[in-house]
Amino acid sequence: MARRRLKHWGWGYEDQAPSREELERAAGGVRGQLGFGGEIEAAVPLDRVEVRKPRLKAPAGLGNLFSDDRYERVSRALGKAYRDVVRGFRGEFENPPDLVALPRDESEIEAVLSWAEAEGAAVVPFGGGTSVVGGVEPRLGDRPVVSLDLRRLDRVLEVDTASMAARIQAGATGPGLEDQLRRHGLTLRHFPQSFEYSTLGGWIATRAGGHFATLYTHIDDLVESVRAITPRGSWESRRLPGSGAGPSPDRALIGSEGILGVIAEAWVRIRPRPESKLSCGVEFDEFAAAGGAVREISQAGLYPTNCRLLDALEAATTGAGSGEKSLLVLGFESAHHPVDEQMRIALEIAEEHGGTPNSPPTGRNVHPDSTNRPVGGDEAVGAWRSAFLFAPYLRDTLVACGVLSETFETAITWDRFEDFHASTMEAVRAKVAEVCDGPGEGPGAPRVTCRFTHVYPDGPAPYFTVMAPAVRGGEVEQWDEIKAAASEAVIESGGTITHHHAVGRDHRPWYDRQRPAPFAAALRAAKKELDPAAILNPGVLIDP
Amino acid sequence: MARRRLKHWGWGYEDQAPSREELERAAGGVRGQLGFGGEIEAAVPLDRVEVRKPRLKAPAGLGNLFSDDRYERVSRALGKAYRDVVRGFRGEFENPPDLVALPRDESEIEAVLSWAEAEGAAVVPFGGGTSVVGGVEPRLGDRPVVSLDLRRLDRVLEVDTASMAARIQAGATGPGLEDQLRRHGLTLRHFPQSFEYSTLGGWIATRAGGHFATLYTHIDDLVESVRAITPRGSWESRRLPGSGAGPSPDRALIGSEGILGVIAEAWVRIRPRPESKLSCGVEFDEFAAAGGAVREISQAGLYPTNCRLLDALEAATTGAGSGEKSLLVLGFESAHHPVDEQMRIALEIAEEHGGTPNSPPTGRNVHPDSTNRPVGGDEAVGAWRSAFLFAPYLRDTLVACGVLSETFETAITWDRFEDFHASTMEAVRAKVAEVCDGPGEGPGAPRVTCRFTHVYPDGPAPYFTVMAPAVRGGEVEQWDEIKAAASEAVIESGGTITHHHAVGRDHRPWYDRQRPAPFAAALRAAKKELDPAAILNPGVLIDP
Repeated sequence: MARRRLKHWGWGYEDQAPSREELERAAGGVRGQLGFGGEIEAAVPLDRVEVRKPRLKAPAGLGNLFSDDRYERVSRALGKAYRDVVRGFRGEFENPPDLVALPRDESEIEAVLSWAEAEGAAVVPFGGGTSVVGGVEPRLGDRPVVSLDLRRLDRVLEVDTASMAARIQAGATGPGLEDQLRRHGLTLRHFPQSFEYSTLGGWIATRAGGHFATLYTHIDDLVESVRAITPRGSWESRRLPGSGAGPSPDRALIGSEGILGVIAEAWVRIRPRPESKLSCGVEFDEFAAAGGAVREISQAGLYPTNCRLLDALEAATTGAGSGEKSLLVLGFESAHHPVDEQMRIALEIAEEHGGTPNSPPTGRNVHPDSTNRPVGGDEAVGAWRSAFLFAPYLRDTLVACGVLSETFETAITWDRFEDFHASTMEAVRAKVAEVCDGPGEGPGAPRVTCRFTHVYPDGPAPYFTVMAPAVRGGEVEQWDEIKAAASEAVIESGGTITHHHAVGRDHRPWYDRQRPAPFAAALRAAKKELDPAAILNPGVLIDP
Repeated sequence: MARRRLKHWGWGYEDQAPSREELERAAGGVRGQLGFGGEIEAAVPLDRVEVRKPRLKAPAGLGNLFSDDRYERVSRALGKAYRDVVRGFRGEFENPPDLVALPRDESEIEAVLSWAEAEGAAVVPFGGGTSVVGGVEPRLGDRPVVSLDLRRLDRVLEVDTASMAARIQAGATGPGLEDQLRRHGLTLRHFPQSFEYSTLGGWIATRAGGHFATLYTHIDDLVESVRAITPRGSWESRRLPGSGAGPSPDRALIGSEGILGVIAEAWVRIRPRPESKLSCGVEFDEFAAAGGAVREISQAGLYPTNCRLLDALEAATTGAGSGEKSLLVLGFESAHHPVDEQMRIALEIAEEHGGTPNSPPTGRNVHPDSTNRPVGGDEAVGAWRSAFLFAPYLRDTLVACGVLSETFETAITWDRFEDFHASTMEAVRAKVAEVCDGPGEGPGAPRVTCRFTHVYPDGPAPYFTVMAPAVRGGEVEQWDEIKAAASEAVIESGGTITHHHAVGRDHRPWYDRQRPAPFAAALRAAKKELDPAAILNPGVLIDP
């Protein structure tokens, strides 16, 4: 197989897996920084993984559409949550799909759905497989399952430079679609942390959160129309810049997590590559004061591209601070005009709230009346950005050396944020102390940190990270207890169970409490109409 | 009855109805400007209207919740489309509701729904009654109908100044809610043309388009959460600044036009009143060149508050131009910072496309470093604004003097706009020529004009106005023929049947072709689940 293969567990390609020496060195660094983490353990290699035999046989008529290859099945058995990475590391792939389907066009998607319906099999649509909520894990007991992998549908089919929109197949990954758009000098600029592997279809199915901290926060805002294949025919909305014709059909598919149809392609709003880009890190003594600055900036109509606030411990953990100060990473960009004026106003607000810029804004500012500023200079901003992209790779190492590392995220209105933050932090810290060994405070203590990934005029999207000594061999149960406490706190204090990680199977108990009951009834009825045999991703969002 | 009463037909309050002399004078002005329009005819007064007897009797148990008052029934029998105004003028109220319900709280809404379900009656939720698509007309044959008027639920219940959001009852009108928000120095700034009479609940049910020409174009974008009463329980979403938990429950209610539930209240995003407001009119020789300027402005990330483009004839008709030039009305506003820089950049773009500003930008620009500019000065902008708000009042006069006057609106991507505009104009002009007497060109010819009401990076929302000599007594048939030709052209050329006027009953044939079939099936299934007796606004959006 000439294709570069993804690791069968964890993050990245097989050829990116570190050697034993590299792992030892990295683990030493982790222990040095965190004060916890133990000896390296080795992952169970693919050839030693025990895999259940396929319970389905590919139909003769559908040629080479299906695969029962061991690697293909194992690498689609889990998502990329901590609980998935740990299980993959230990060789525990309890729920491999029985077959993997690799359609090349829509007619082949239809063929898979028809066949599965006739067989009584379930179908799990699969993009990059980066779900952190059990969205792609076929946790379906005795029911046979096909993983429907869209990776062969990876092309940008049309680019409309007048309307700044492109028609892109659902299986295109972040780098794949950006490469194709770059030829036109254009970009989608949707950069979730999973960007390298996740796909347009996956982003739409899960309402992925991207690059822009304000305004165009979710892929939702970039979607012009969607085309999906349902078991009862194709669902295609018109390409429209805006419409008021009934409830939005697109918004019904966006976030449907594969239960209504298989997203095949979409028209998305693209843009020229930015010419002006300015960044600035601002330090605050107090997280609350920084939050006040962010609130005012988000309500001022400035629309920063980046407006991410890291609490002091998170800034330190990502190498972007000393641990004493909260760090606000502000960024503005434009393909059209200079952005120094917006940055000036935003910094003015930040300073009024007690913030101190690390340095003057850095980047490029294309201005007709002035020379462009040079690139580089703000190390805190750069450090944070590298850490952001590197985090999922690092986690495999953390698992190997016995460090629990996972996140949860939400959104809440400003009026409730302070209480929300306090009660959530308290609940999670208490549970972490209960289920983790080691000191409760000071060096070597578990870390529970918070940042804002996106902000709105009416509230922030707080994102929490937990790092703690893992209970070796009991990692999943340990994390599940912390996650339950966190989810309980989030839902009890009025937040959403997810701002951009989706619901999947793992968030179900809390999602079921969050959503309006009549909406759940409506969604169940809609699914029953379009997917009467309940073949599409059963157990996600709703029960059949 | 001490309450100031709305006219039983047409626009405005009874005390605003012009006298015979005022009508004669206005009609003279109309004839002078348009070159067509005939003698004044008199509207049929309420006491000469023949009204069908109520087919329902209010239940004894529900006290004074229901009214079978003649005025109440007649004034809820029609919307405010041209075809409604004409019929009201002639005293043709074929479909009056049998009863009008005026609930004071949610339990009374529930009581009405339960009673109606038991009686087999339909329920038409009624806000301001300004639907122009047959959305509130109980066109239901033999089925008895209750009009559920929400006007008693008209309060701002909570204001959250931290998150900039307010909880407002669905029956609050534009001026009603703005008056209550003004006490806090805040505003929703959602100003549809129907602002004076329409309600928050109506805006949400119909995805109303408002003040902002870019970014926050529809009420959709201002909704934080919605609470609705369905026949199967209350549907309330969490207050969240953003969420990724499944398909948005709010987006399922927004645009549902009363078929899924009765919207009782909503949390909406509000803002401080703007301090800086700059406006400027820019003239263009060619509509296409002006469209190019608007496209570039809409793609530059400037987010003008106003970016409305009027073609030459429309500018002349509204008294904002000589008829030679297209007029672009540009506006920027901010409660936080000066807006002169954005205006400067937008004008630079407009000038690059051949535009000539009428005058320097006028308004207020609160700037720390400079004196504020004075108010006033740009007459074209002012003339357009007055005409916009006066238009619905004027139409009653136009009907009286035999002038057909109606609009239709849509949205289309930029790549298709030029062809779309040409083919739609051609189709409508040809049909107007066929069904209207008088010269085809020059003075006294019918007018078909176009403006952009809202613009997006990927396309404009064109809004067409038709003014022509009416066929007295055959106005409805005459307009229906034009409307059918227009709708056909819009749908054939890829547009939406409505950008912000909703679907109602009048747009059904074209909406049915526009929406994805599986979405329609899903919506029908959802309705059947929540409203199994199909009591809620039957015939709107879908058939039961």
